Amino acid sequence: MSDPYASDLDRNPANYQPLTPLSFLARAGTVFPDHTAIIHGGLRRSYGSFYARARQLASALSRRGVGRGDTVSVLLPNVPPMVEAHYGVPMAGAVLHSINTQLDAGIIAFQLDHSDSKVVITDRALAPRMKDALALAKAQPIVIDYDDPEFPQSGDLLGSIEYEDFIADGDPDFDWLMPLDEWDAISLNYTSGTTGDPKGVVYHHRGAYLLALGNAVTMAMPKHAVYLWTLPMFHCNGWCFPWTLSALSGTSVCLRQVRQQPMWDALADHQVTHMCGAPIVMSTLLATPEAEKRALPGRVEFLTAAAPPPETVLADMREAGFNVTHLYGLTETYGPAVVNDWHQAWDGLDGRAQAMLKARQGVRYLPLEGLEVRDPQTMQPVPADGKTLGEVMFRGNVVMKGYLKNPAATEAAFAGGWFHSGDLGVMHPDGYIQLKDRSKDIIISGGENISSIEVEEVFYKHPDVAAVAVVAMPHERWGETPCAFVELVTGSTVTPEDLIAHCRTGLAGFKIPHRVVFEDLPKTSTGKIQKFALRERVRAL
Amino acid sequence: MSDPYASDLDRNPANYQPLTPLSFLARAGTVFPDHTAIIHGGLRRSYGSFYARARQLASALSRRGVGRGDTVSVLLPNVPPMVEAHYGVPMAGAVLHSINTQLDAGIIAFQLDHSDSKVVITDRALAPRMKDALALAKAQPIVIDYDDPEFPQSGDLLGSIEYEDFIADGDPDFDWLMPLDEWDAISLNYTSGTTGDPKGVVYHHRGAYLLALGNAVTMAMPKHAVYLWTLPMFHCNGWCFPWTLSALSGTSVCLRQVRQQPMWDALADHQVTHMCGAPIVMSTLLATPEAEKRALPGRVEFLTAAAPPPETVLADMREAGFNVTHLYGLTETYGPAVVNDWHQAWDGLDGRAQAMLKARQGVRYLPLEGLEVRDPQTMQPVPADGKTLGEVMFRGNVVMKGYLKNPAATEAAFAGGWFHSGDLGVMHPDGYIQLKDRSKDIIISGGENISSIEVEEVFYKHPDVAAVAVVAMPHERWGETPCAFVELVTGSTVTPEDLIAHCRTGLAGFKIPHRVVFEDLPKTSTGKIQKFALRERVRAL
Repeated sequence: MSDPYASDLDRNPANYQPLTPLSFLARAGTVFPDHTAIIHGGLRRSYGSFYARARQLASALSRRGVGRGDTVSVLLPNVPPMVEAHYGVPMAGAVLHSINTQLDAGIIAFQLDHSDSKVVITDRALAPRMKDALALAKAQPIVIDYDDPEFPQSGDLLGSIEYEDFIADGDPDFDWLMPLDEWDAISLNYTSGTTGDPKGVVYHHRGAYLLALGNAVTMAMPKHAVYLWTLPMFHCNGWCFPWTLSALSGTSVCLRQVRQQPMWDALADHQVTHMCGAPIVMSTLLATPEAEKRALPGRVEFLTAAAPPPETVLADMREAGFNVTHLYGLTETYGPAVVNDWHQAWDGLDGRAQAMLKARQGVRYLPLEGLEVRDPQTMQPVPADGKTLGEVMFRGNVVMKGYLKNPAATEAAFAGGWFHSGDLGVMHPDGYIQLKDRSKDIIISGGENISSIEVEEVFYKHPDVAAVAVVAMPHERWGETPCAFVELVTGSTVTPEDLIAHCRTGLAGFKIPHRVVFEDLPKTSTGKIQKFALRERVRAL
Repeated sequence: MSDPYASDLDRNPANYQPLTPLSFLARAGTVFPDHTAIIHGGLRRSYGSFYARARQLASALSRRGVGRGDTVSVLLPNVPPMVEAHYGVPMAGAVLHSINTQLDAGIIAFQLDHSDSKVVITDRALAPRMKDALALAKAQPIVIDYDDPEFPQSGDLLGSIEYEDFIADGDPDFDWLMPLDEWDAISLNYTSGTTGDPKGVVYHHRGAYLLALGNAVTMAMPKHAVYLWTLPMFHCNGWCFPWTLSALSGTSVCLRQVRQQPMWDALADHQVTHMCGAPIVMSTLLATPEAEKRALPGRVEFLTAAAPPPETVLADMREAGFNVTHLYGLTETYGPAVVNDWHQAWDGLDGRAQAMLKARQGVRYLPLEGLEVRDPQTMQPVPADGKTLGEVMFRGNVVMKGYLKNPAATEAAFAGGWFHSGDLGVMHPDGYIQLKDRSKDIIISGGENISSIEVEEVFYKHPDVAAVAVVAMPHERWGETPCAFVELVTGSTVTPEDLIAHCRTGLAGFKIPHRVVFEDLPKTSTGKIQKFALRERVRAL
């Protein structure tokens, strides 16, 4: 007999619509038109205005011939047009390509060409690099300048029109385009790979919708949450928070730069409830002179990723009024796909034990279906013993569509039906994963694997070490040995020999760095230490 | 040129999985295995145990030959097996058919036959009716008795096996079945239509997943929320809260019956954060003798539907420590699909103005894509003037698949690409809808439409009226006239004539009931007044 539940119960427009985060803004714009959506300097923009402007942007793009499958590129700091682009670009059917504001002109040119960019919106402060990039690129996009009225910048105006003039041409009642299918692309983010050309990670409407809700549920974010933009929005679409905020009719507080006093002022003046950032943002907050700090209106939820938060930072953040949650993910997983989901029972542990537990990356985010540590050769899960190393793999609806125009890389990334992160880790008996290293960060010395993270952890226990990165240094006899690059705290008089002696207290002999170098560490805009630069550096030593 | 975003970026197991709320329990069962999932009397069941038992139920069903497309029926109050069935039944690939515990044997028999039920799980206290239903039905399901060990019941044991023995036969590590497609059916709920055979409303995994998350986001429910089961779980699958709770690793506090002291004890003892129910649940809470009330540990979120909460109830609930949110929906919309989304600015209004605003049904729930009031003839939206009557219509992913084995009714319900609710309402200028009547509740007197709700509202303003329902009474001259059935407050000495005089102060002459009858109103288990019964009653007057 045929299945009665499969007959005469088909999809139709009444019971099936594509999932898209664009529907969040349509809702907030009509239900809470007067509520503040965006704060930037002295600017306050309501949801009614935000929704109208997003439609104007979509309309203006449409009038210039931009439509389904076209790429619109933005080189913008965390300013209102960046929030608007997260809606206005896909409302024209187009794909939002966010460019990392730290990249050099050559890589920007590569991205514009590879994505066949039709339009570029560029901040005036970043004009010099965009000018060089446009000169290098074959693509001939329409160029729109954003000349921030709140924070006037110097620099050329490159394009044919300024952003406000451009959208003034658009219809605020534009009948914006729903995706034809929730699998349609919504955005494009290039990974800053350490080798080869950057890969263009494509997100779809379905995943953006689900991760946006996943953020809200995971953090129990309330209606009208107030979010401070210390995480760059160009980074995995700000972990999808531009979409989460509209789902909650919340407020985005923009910040052009992560600086001490503006952050504290924003926290206090706008009663911020949530913010995200790499550990460097926490350090910047904590290092603020007392006179510039402000009293917080309530506990602030701080979501961090990129590196496990150290014990002292956790303690200092707690005392300062922040609750820190450790997340983990990759560009390929829309940002956060793993959360260090805290157990109430752990509250009773001492600071050191809590920091050890909080250093683990954790468990799958609610909208992720699978998170495992597997042997990439056999594709078998490793034992959940907290020791056996394997590759962290993801499966689910918040994994990218694939890499743009790169079927070989896409196929390799999805081999065996799982997304291969390239990160090495272990599975603890309680189901929490912990990263041990990037594959390429393993140092192989005399045939023995050395985890650079393990060596770094010992350095961090020394009170004078502010930051450290350990990379492989070529060695005639051992093949490789560890080399440590160290930033010391201000005023320290410690020597490399002191630190090597300190390492002997906590590391097997073969793991002790043969060399310790004191210098500032190169970091990405998100605070990630750029080990590839240090690997170049090590050859010059 | 072909769209580059549509090439080589296909779905595969790594980046696409069916949305299903079953994944929530799999997550909670592994991440928080020791956290309390279910409380029932003296019973505490952890998420580890809950997940294992759900798999045992699925496994035991599979061993009896139950699989994809099969129906498993349950006649259960809010007890642990009802929560477990929300996972265990679909984990076997089957469809959960929840039977309203108030129905008579004939309707139950109809449902068992219509759904071709393979298995029935029935509470011992409800055995007499199920016994009669099974005698009437052609279906020959396997019958499983639930003999509640926490609250021993009298009554026959009807079946071949008791629930605990049945699941003991199942494998706690059963490799449960994912839906093949997120559009697959997860549950079946018959509407208690006022005419004709009941219609079987079919839900799918996708909608259950989305409404479950919609509940969490709309109410900003935190991790480990504690939910008191005063809403029957057989009613729209408890508005999908059995699935919401696992998404949050929250706690379900079961209650066999809505009674005063057990509710207050549960609220205080288990630190309840959220509960749902019709206005009758609020009245029951408020009418509790002071000696039986308990101090609340914190503010409790109370979600109500079925009728707008009256001003005095709102005021009394606030004072008692509850925050009341008004929701609206139908069986066909998975329960709540509309929320009276409160504006901060309204907090400053007086009680009467707040009650008027709170009486409006509101705006679309986050996972609903469309909510409109349309003229069912022309399918044009009515003006947003708060006056023009139209039919409330829904569109989106939390609208049912359709009616089981009833393509004609399904087609009619979805005519024009919108789900036709049968409820009449208006659209206010601010986009909030307000119900004015069920189509069938309109009284047509001398060619003029009379809204029974409008007449009832005037009655409610009289201090001696506890409850009222107005229905059409046949009339030789006018066709129909209003007839009011009234429950008076205890000790009232008011007369029908008094109330008619009272009506003259607030109603046009043709709207004043020709007759006022004092008697107890027939109500459904969810507190909805059964107007169809009163329409029968009116013929006997």
